[in-house]
Amino acid sequence: MGNFGRVPVGVVGASDYGGVQLVRLLMDHPEVELVYLGNESSIGKPFADLYPQLAHAVNQKIEAVDPEVIAQRCEVVFLCLPNGQACEIAPQLLEKGCKVLDLSADYRFSHLPTYTAWYSKERTDRSTAAVAVYGLPELYRDRLTEAQLVGCPGCYPTASLLALSPLLKQGLIVPETAIIDAKSGTSGGGRQAKINMLLAEADNSLAAYSVSRHHHTPEIEQICSDLAGHEVTIQFTPHLIPMVRGILATVYATLRDPGLVRDDLITIYRAFYRNSPWVKICDPGIYPQTKWAYGSNLCYIGIEADPRTGRAIVMSVIDNLIKGQAGQAIQCLNIMMDWDETLGLPKLGFYP
Amino acid sequence: MGNFGRVPVGVVGASDYGGVQLVRLLMDHPEVELVYLGNESSIGKPFADLYPQLAHAVNQKIEAVDPEVIAQRCEVVFLCLPNGQACEIAPQLLEKGCKVLDLSADYRFSHLPTYTAWYSKERTDRSTAAVAVYGLPELYRDRLTEAQLVGCPGCYPTASLLALSPLLKQGLIVPETAIIDAKSGTSGGGRQAKINMLLAEADNSLAAYSVSRHHHTPEIEQICSDLAGHEVTIQFTPHLIPMVRGILATVYATLRDPGLVRDDLITIYRAFYRNSPWVKICDPGIYPQTKWAYGSNLCYIGIEADPRTGRAIVMSVIDNLIKGQAGQAIQCLNIMMDWDETLGLPKLGFYP
Amino acid sequence: MGNFGRVPVGVVGASDYGGVQLVRLLMDHPEVELVYLGNESSIGKPFADLYPQLAHAVNQKIEAVDPEVIAQRCEVVFLCLPNGQACEIAPQLLEKGCKVLDLSADYRFSHLPTYTAWYSKERTDRSTAAVAVYGLPELYRDRLTEAQLVGCPGCYPTASLLALSPLLKQGLIVPETAIIDAKSGTSGGGRQAKINMLLAEADNSLAAYSVSRHHHTPEIEQICSDLAGHEVTIQFTPHLIPMVRGILATVYATLRDPGLVRDDLITIYRAFYRNSPWVKICDPGIYPQTKWAYGSNLCYIGIEADPRTGRAIVMSVIDNLIKGQAGQAIQCLNIMMDWDETLGLPKLGFYP
Amino acid sequence: MGNFGRVPVGVVGASDYGGVQLVRLLMDHPEVELVYLGNESSIGKPFADLYPQLAHAVNQKIEAVDPEVIAQRCEVVFLCLPNGQACEIAPQLLEKGCKVLDLSADYRFSHLPTYTAWYSKERTDRSTAAVAVYGLPELYRDRLTEAQLVGCPGCYPTASLLALSPLLKQGLIVPETAIIDAKSGTSGGGRQAKINMLLAEADNSLAAYSVSRHHHTPEIEQICSDLAGHEVTIQFTPHLIPMVRGILATVYATLRDPGLVRDDLITIYRAFYRNSPWVKICDPGIYPQTKWAYGSNLCYIGIEADPRTGRAIVMSVIDNLIKGQAGQAIQCLNIMMDWDETLGLPKLGFYP
Repeated sequence: MGNFGRVPVGVVGASDYGGVQLVRLLMDHPEVELVYLGNESSIGKPFADLYPQLAHAVNQKIEAVDPEVIAQRCEVVFLCLPNGQACEIAPQLLEKGCKVLDLSADYRFSHLPTYTAWYSKERTDRSTAAVAVYGLPELYRDRLTEAQLVGCPGCYPTASLLALSPLLKQGLIVPETAIIDAKSGTSGGGRQAKINMLLAEADNSLAAYSVSRHHHTPEIEQICSDLAGHEVTIQFTPHLIPMVRGILATVYATLRDPGLVRDDLITIYRAFYRNSPWVKICDPGIYPQTKWAYGSNLCYIGIEADPRTGRAIVMSVIDNLIKGQAGQAIQCLNIMMDWDETLGLPKLGFYP
Repeated sequence: MGNFGRVPVGVVGASDYGGVQLVRLLMDHPEVELVYLGNESSIGKPFADLYPQLAHAVNQKIEAVDPEVIAQRCEVVFLCLPNGQACEIAPQLLEKGCKVLDLSADYRFSHLPTYTAWYSKERTDRSTAAVAVYGLPELYRDRLTEAQLVGCPGCYPTASLLALSPLLKQGLIVPETAIIDAKSGTSGGGRQAKINMLLAEADNSLAAYSVSRHHHTPEIEQICSDLAGHEVTIQFTPHLIPMVRGILATVYATLRDPGLVRDDLITIYRAFYRNSPWVKICDPGIYPQTKWAYGSNLCYIGIEADPRTGRAIVMSVIDNLIKGQAGQAIQCLNIMMDWDETLGLPKLGFYP
Repeated sequence: MGNFGRVPVGVVGASDYGGVQLVRLLMDHPEVELVYLGNESSIGKPFADLYPQLAHAVNQKIEAVDPEVIAQRCEVVFLCLPNGQACEIAPQLLEKGCKVLDLSADYRFSHLPTYTAWYSKERTDRSTAAVAVYGLPELYRDRLTEAQLVGCPGCYPTASLLALSPLLKQGLIVPETAIIDAKSGTSGGGRQAKINMLLAEADNSLAAYSVSRHHHTPEIEQICSDLAGHEVTIQFTPHLIPMVRGILATVYATLRDPGLVRDDLITIYRAFYRNSPWVKICDPGIYPQTKWAYGSNLCYIGIEADPRTGRAIVMSVIDNLIKGQAGQAIQCLNIMMDWDETLGLPKLGFYP
Repeated sequence: MGNFGRVPVGVVGASDYGGVQLVRLLMDHPEVELVYLGNESSIGKPFADLYPQLAHAVNQKIEAVDPEVIAQRCEVVFLCLPNGQACEIAPQLLEKGCKVLDLSADYRFSHLPTYTAWYSKERTDRSTAAVAVYGLPELYRDRLTEAQLVGCPGCYPTASLLALSPLLKQGLIVPETAIIDAKSGTSGGGRQAKINMLLAEADNSLAAYSVSRHHHTPEIEQICSDLAGHEVTIQFTPHLIPMVRGILATVYATLRDPGLVRDDLITIYRAFYRNSPWVKICDPGIYPQTKWAYGSNLCYIGIEADPRTGRAIVMSVIDNLIKGQAGQAIQCLNIMMDWDETLGLPKLGFYP
């Protein structure tokens, strides 16, 4: 039994960075009550054994992942499982009437063969996948109001698509010229013990990875194709940055009309996002820092047009664990529940 | 009077990061002796007042900058002055018979109007500029053997040009498709007290700057044009990374022949750099980290060809203060003096 | 005119880290309205010129610092001025009926000659200083309920005193054996452009500073003496840590009764802080990380007793800009206004 | 077969940070040749598979650890094995005539029951341990000239003992008042994948660990007792700092003679270390930064005497992987071989 009138929600897979972030944010949300924390491991242990600093705030124990039990207690379920596991449990939760928000890649693809090609997993839940809505509210707000199942976007696709969408939607660029050079803090790699993610290895260093084959590529291309109205191929290169949080996507694309200037683009972006409270378009000459978005659900976008090369250069920054993950999931929930889209989410970045 | 047989060298403007780096490296060079340290400020003070940690190793005082005196004592002079100041002193030093290596932008441009347009300074030393050699040994080794005046490359141009040159020289790419997304540690900004360079501001954050108008752009374009045999326009975007040292340039360009694969490119790069001891081409699938070059004069280059987009993606890393500044100047000196190109320079990166 | 029923507050000196932090926190406080932002410089400019990322949230302009005007508009005034400036303006604000919370050192000392000795400034406002209450609520909550003027503690004294107080108050230690080895992120140095605070200098490095003469020493000693009931001399050494935020104070002191064990001490600390919602005592064997307090008003305390040496070792962590500065000021305000002590303050650390 | 006249050396356990550091330094040493690299895992693989950035410099393969084979090929063997493993192999190597330098804790203790108590391992090699020399050249240079087996000090003990020794040796302090508050970069934890060492966890945070029970405590106490001439108990607390390399030990101790001032202590320290080329005593009022020692074998010591408390406060900094590990082992070798103590070791810190 929860607080009177609050919506009971559960989190499955609460131990990784996305999960603990979600727990933190849900604790502060005025309309929900966190009634269930599930995980495959550490069952029966207090959540605070994993995160002692939350001992005073979260007194729940970690419970086994039983869809039957979850559905009895929760109206809404967030799935923070590794790719390929959400699709094993989401159909049962939906069937029992839960709203499901999946933070993995499982329900981001309308075309399952693409998923299978990039994630090496066969899928049998075609009908479930067909009803999933891609949880980028700035593009699919209308569909989210009716959604039962949301495939929340990846962190890189969130930053990349918010930067590219106005250009693609308005047909202002040659789509195949689009190059996304993305930079992320190491928390994007999750809370797994890997040598290359040690501070002693990753600090004071910088490198690209998964060049030409990162599995966020098809996700970005799917939405770009939807916006452009035809199949689009995108160059996407991620880099690991020696910092904890934040993504900067620097996007390059050739303008169809080389006469377009920076101020035109800024006007177009502001119009495109005028109903999107979480997207802020910078004034001319201002380029966003990832730190501005740190700890908030905001996305800042800076825009340049280079008359020498005829390209638009768009820079978007987000906190990869909030707008890029847990915060965006809650933003989707707010829309699904017909609450204010900004409810319960941090509105001011954490600075310095 | 120096050590018997050693070449007496001087450093003008030794107080900034490039200067102190040069001092450190020259102390370890077996064929030179550092006999003069000049600066516009702190004249008469021990160098160790600025850098107490070097008190046991450098006992010189900072002296006034008098070309007459410098030329009497030094056979070789390194100029580590702000842009626009080297060109005030270099002609006199040359006239008196010194070899001059300038680490500023002043002697990087064969076409002075370009310099004036980007650096806002009129120049009267056209004849001096005409004899300067661009100090990127991997491209202009032959000219350096005869040089009296060397314009040492900028840090970004060094990383960018080493990544792009084989593709341009062999005509493998469409030059105007080249995009350089460069990332640098903050030491590139020098030892000036600026708020945006404070640890509290710059740590755990990331941003682009000088988008579409960084003054290293024309320097890169000049050399690219030389290699391509015609005028080339390049997109160059620098980013500030929360780390002290290192540059990664991620370079994108459309291949003329989409049938070229990664291994072809690696073969081409290895051939191109086979006589260049400081450039190391990574094995297939290996992408370099800036830390690998940390503290050495090395440049590591990783290569990918993306069959989906028809682009080459080349990643080069250097230590911005060594191969990108002080080390490269000494590499040039080695060539000018007919010493081994690797003499006195650190050959193994500093790890972790 | 503010929002109906909200208390109008002003911030003088809003441009430094403490000020901007205060602005951020006050924006989220449900009972106050920020109606005035004053500064000595940038008068007439939008606050967002200094902090573009707050443009969407703070639309105020920076105004001149005129006590007359401030008092007309504000019921409560926070002073975030350099040491020695608050005492020039606080008396007038008090006289006109404002409640004043000073974040500088000016009103921390009941004995003004001590202030003068350590801060090199003569004071003429003895009667004002006499009514100031030291704003560490965990020790002086009762006095704060009646306070008109609060001298908010320094960041190091906050962490140090929360660690030491239970031991001193209960007479468990030999006071003169107390050693505080404190470590702080660089934001404690403020938003001033100093070379030693550059990322290129301060990152990946570590040093002590102001050894044996940091001006937080007499502040710590004053409160320790108050708790011990007699004059106490303390060893205090601050260190600069390559991180943005956070303080860890490691406190050593010889126990009078060497038979006391860790669990005894933990029990004593929990009793001492049982009515202090912002202080959390760690379970046995758990030592707090500064990151746990990051972004919140919390202080975590870990405790060890070493039977080999007979010492207590107490570790306290805070966010230097929140519990160590802006958050604590708001905590004091909450008590002065008879609001819940936790109102409007972040309750969960920002992790990872 | 090695280079003519060079001493053939081997490294057992070359994969961790200490090992790779040793490999780097040995490559640059003019009197040795690295002829053997052994490891328990990755046998038969090129060393460059672990460290691709060294591919151009180290072409050896990793070999199995067979004392018979090692002794045939190597005159000197460095052991970089986990604690408890060197003592399994050192006796055989010694018997076959090798000089052995062990970087683990195995041969640091003259009193094996102390080792067993703190490292939980029974030992059967008492006679071998009895001939081992503690490899801190500044204290035991004479014994090292004759040593066949050296137990190289831990990183914390190196920094701590260099700071404390002059005070203890001259009887200037009350030994039991000595408190060592030590701070280390995370590379001290080795190249093991541990969650608490991830950049996302350890960056921008700070904590103490192993309070009152770190296993470097008895090592420090053993040498302090030797210097003091009687049993000494020391308080030692290590902290993890968000940086890669470097240790700062801040040492507190009550002076027997409160009339001693800072300049007296500096004079005493300079005399104590006058024949120690790697120890630099800072001028009055200068406190060393860890960065000064970065990449070199240097130890910088800053000294303060606090007349208010009667304590000496001594700060020592080293690079934990060089003077604290691999560099010190080579320094010991230089002494054992009657080479210049500074041979082949980096003499200037890496800055910035």
